[in-house]
Amino acid sequence: MSNRRLCRTFQTAPAAVPKDDTAKYLRSGLEAEGFRAPDWLVPDVEDGTAPDMKDDGLENTIELVPRYDFAGEIWPRVEWGDENEASRERGREQIDRLVGEIGDDVDGVVVPKVGRLDDVERAAAVVADAEAEHGYADGSIGLSIIVETGRARSDLREIATFGADSRLTALVFGPVDYAADLGARDLGDGMPRWDGLLEALSNEASAAGLLSIGGPFDDLFTERAGLTYYNADGYADQVEHEARIGLDGSWSLYPKQTIQANTVHMPTAAELERDVHKIERFNEAKREGTGAVNIDGQMVDEATFKNFRNTVETVRAIDEGRPTQTEATYDDDLLERARSVDLVFR
Amino acid sequence: MSNRRLCRTFQTAPAAVPKDDTAKYLRSGLEAEGFRAPDWLVPDVEDGTAPDMKDDGLENTIELVPRYDFAGEIWPRVEWGDENEASRERGREQIDRLVGEIGDDVDGVVVPKVGRLDDVERAAAVVADAEAEHGYADGSIGLSIIVETGRARSDLREIATFGADSRLTALVFGPVDYAADLGARDLGDGMPRWDGLLEALSNEASAAGLLSIGGPFDDLFTERAGLTYYNADGYADQVEHEARIGLDGSWSLYPKQTIQANTVHMPTAAELERDVHKIERFNEAKREGTGAVNIDGQMVDEATFKNFRNTVETVRAIDEGRPTQTEATYDDDLLERARSVDLVFR
Amino acid sequence: MSNRRLCRTFQTAPAAVPKDDTAKYLRSGLEAEGFRAPDWLVPDVEDGTAPDMKDDGLENTIELVPRYDFAGEIWPRVEWGDENEASRERGREQIDRLVGEIGDDVDGVVVPKVGRLDDVERAAAVVADAEAEHGYADGSIGLSIIVETGRARSDLREIATFGADSRLTALVFGPVDYAADLGARDLGDGMPRWDGLLEALSNEASAAGLLSIGGPFDDLFTERAGLTYYNADGYADQVEHEARIGLDGSWSLYPKQTIQANTVHMPTAAELERDVHKIERFNEAKREGTGAVNIDGQMVDEATFKNFRNTVETVRAIDEGRPTQTEATYDDDLLERARSVDLVFR
Repeated sequence: MSNRRLCRTFQTAPAAVPKDDTAKYLRSGLEAEGFRAPDWLVPDVEDGTAPDMKDDGLENTIELVPRYDFAGEIWPRVEWGDENEASRERGREQIDRLVGEIGDDVDGVVVPKVGRLDDVERAAAVVADAEAEHGYADGSIGLSIIVETGRARSDLREIATFGADSRLTALVFGPVDYAADLGARDLGDGMPRWDGLLEALSNEASAAGLLSIGGPFDDLFTERAGLTYYNADGYADQVEHEARIGLDGSWSLYPKQTIQANTVHMPTAAELERDVHKIERFNEAKREGTGAVNIDGQMVDEATFKNFRNTVETVRAIDEGRPTQTEATYDDDLLERARSVDLVFR
Repeated sequence: MSNRRLCRTFQTAPAAVPKDDTAKYLRSGLEAEGFRAPDWLVPDVEDGTAPDMKDDGLENTIELVPRYDFAGEIWPRVEWGDENEASRERGREQIDRLVGEIGDDVDGVVVPKVGRLDDVERAAAVVADAEAEHGYADGSIGLSIIVETGRARSDLREIATFGADSRLTALVFGPVDYAADLGARDLGDGMPRWDGLLEALSNEASAAGLLSIGGPFDDLFTERAGLTYYNADGYADQVEHEARIGLDGSWSLYPKQTIQANTVHMPTAAELERDVHKIERFNEAKREGTGAVNIDGQMVDEATFKNFRNTVETVRAIDEGRPTQTEATYDDDLLERARSVDLVFR
Repeated sequence: MSNRRLCRTFQTAPAAVPKDDTAKYLRSGLEAEGFRAPDWLVPDVEDGTAPDMKDDGLENTIELVPRYDFAGEIWPRVEWGDENEASRERGREQIDRLVGEIGDDVDGVVVPKVGRLDDVERAAAVVADAEAEHGYADGSIGLSIIVETGRARSDLREIATFGADSRLTALVFGPVDYAADLGARDLGDGMPRWDGLLEALSNEASAAGLLSIGGPFDDLFTERAGLTYYNADGYADQVEHEARIGLDGSWSLYPKQTIQANTVHMPTAAELERDVHKIERFNEAKREGTGAVNIDGQMVDEATFKNFRNTVETVRAIDEGRPTQTEATYDDDLLERARSVDLVFR
């Protein structure tokens, strides 16, 4: 089994909407198949669900999640706010109910609008309390946070370092609240991309062994020549930028976005072929007793080997949970080699 | 009365120049009207005034400032240097004289060329000493700093955090000295914009409740087809970039720059209309007893409400000090609604 | 004699290659003349030398370096890895042998793949132990590090601050390992430039009095219209960007790169003429007893004087070690003025 943590897609779904089936979008996320299935499904009882439907959203989550054998991870987003005690109290109750009633079915909770390190520690303590209260082992319920205040950005390094030894799992960017917190303004050509923050998010997550996830892209549709259609280009540009700087995954608001983010954050067939080939050649050379190993003009040492292995382990992790995705992307022979190649460095 | 701190424009004026009226530019700043009037006027006895005129500059400031009922804030810039004891000693004397003689008429002092946190603390202690010596209440004289050394940039987070509980009011960027300190070079296409620093300045100021102000733009004039004219485009580009990333204001060296920075950092009529409208609709829905409030398709909670309120509070603050600016920007009806709408979230 | 530390060029040379003369590239670096001679020559027994040739590389370095009177500095790169104890043990042995056998001929060692501050301190302690063991004065053997892990980037400020009072001399960027550590991906348009990291490298190095050096550029050759030729444009673009943001030098992999980096990081004749002229005029005005000094419309104080002096000191430092470079760049009269002008601020 792969021990590689995967979150190519962080798909939020409103946990309740004012429709006949209030759980329409949650259900749709839980039932998604193929490339529409996200690695993480985030039933959202925070900003994606109207205030008067939040209770319904929590009930929907508690009722529906255990009924599905969702292959990815389940991370409900609860309410919180480092400057809002009432929100924190609601978040505390939501976490307690989620752990108490479906603790076996969730991988962790997503806590938004955190402030400085002490607020993140406070959120972590709430999760720890719920675990203890309901008899779960310490650390069995994860915590991921949305970085969307100037205070969390200011303490990002300290938060990530704390996270290296804690239940903290992912650092997720929240650009809308962040821009409002800084007083950023759209003067007609959109909001800043916050390159400094994104680079720091990628770096601090890597340095502490956490996952890093980009923010939502809400220009879902675009219009041209009288036709309104899904904005595939806009979202792909953002996701590719996130992959380029080393973020592990992207936020999805919509099944088509999930298809795109799953695809971009997955090794291409060429990448997999290259890295499986290099590991095979390396293993062969080692069996033949060669000391230093030069593969196709590149010296392979433990560090390079680790990079090749990362590719294969990512593919194996996808293959376990979402075999339709790997089977659609790699030919049978390559996939079989990826499944069987020896990944131990000798 | 609005309690929103305003510094759209940080206009420095040499406190003495070698002309018949050595206070020409200082007087001009104090007398400016309409959009030419800066939010902060900074009588400059540091780099803007020649060494042999600095004493005159201090005298001009002490003599002229109390004579005018300047509607904005007065923040003289004194000498300082974390690696220059003589400068610090002169700065100490200048601060002592300013507080002792016109302490009622200045809002604070601007201290340039600060180094690491301990140097900022040292500057703050000098202001505290002057306050105590001359019988002012603790904290009544503010401190703003120019971030223009690698050391201040390195300690920016710690300086801002210290500032959250101190007299520190604004963090201002000083690109010329900063570039020299880092050994940056203009190879023909200008100096870097220091995007990382500016993003951090905006973030750390917001996280600590301070104001953030961009650096001076000294390409005042441009030439084309035989004509030399004011470089309105160049300055507007810089100011708009600063507004976009959430800086509160821009540095002005010249009345026309003040017009532009005042304008860009002021909510547009469309922004004000939109946010007043949303608050009015929200208040109305609340009066009617609606639970969750959906305005024009957007869910309004305390955080969104706060963003709308920010716009209105900014306009009210401008309206108090500079009614000619608000009256020229918004029509009477909108302005009246902005003045009277209820800003308490219920 | 100039006390200005110079590292326009950080040229790595594989210390052993599988050729008849295994020291071909090392020898070539040691013998380079004119603009091909780097300020720092880095005999590389780490990633540039194959695993089965590393021992030869160390022997070549020990044998060859003392035979040449190299005018620049010699900084062998040893093995290391904050997550690789075997590498660290080899690094320790390599440092011990280098200091023990050619400690008089090396200026320091370059330690790659460092992690957080404690790992840098551990590397510094290894150098200190070797110094003590072999009777060298404390601090006589320098330490430079390659910043190429998320952990080193995360602790960059703390590492540089530690460096201000230690043997730490230069912070060098290592983009290839850094990108792999963050999981960055080339999706067809190359790797990120890591602007945030580079700006921080320049800032923290300046704040702590260290040198900052950019990463290697390995697209050595380019192809157009059937011809493959040296990629002078690509490398110059990178070096000029590094100079613009205040890095002190650039990494060179190749003699032609050394020519370019030496040239870009050297004051132009126009810069030298301007700054020598200003110092001469300033000194003259001071001799005549003028108080404040206005040179060509610019007020000159100690800070501005320091910037002019930096230019002259850099040229003097180059002139001492590489007089063919200064003689080729500046005319005799200007160079003589630069050598003789009085640099003491009065």
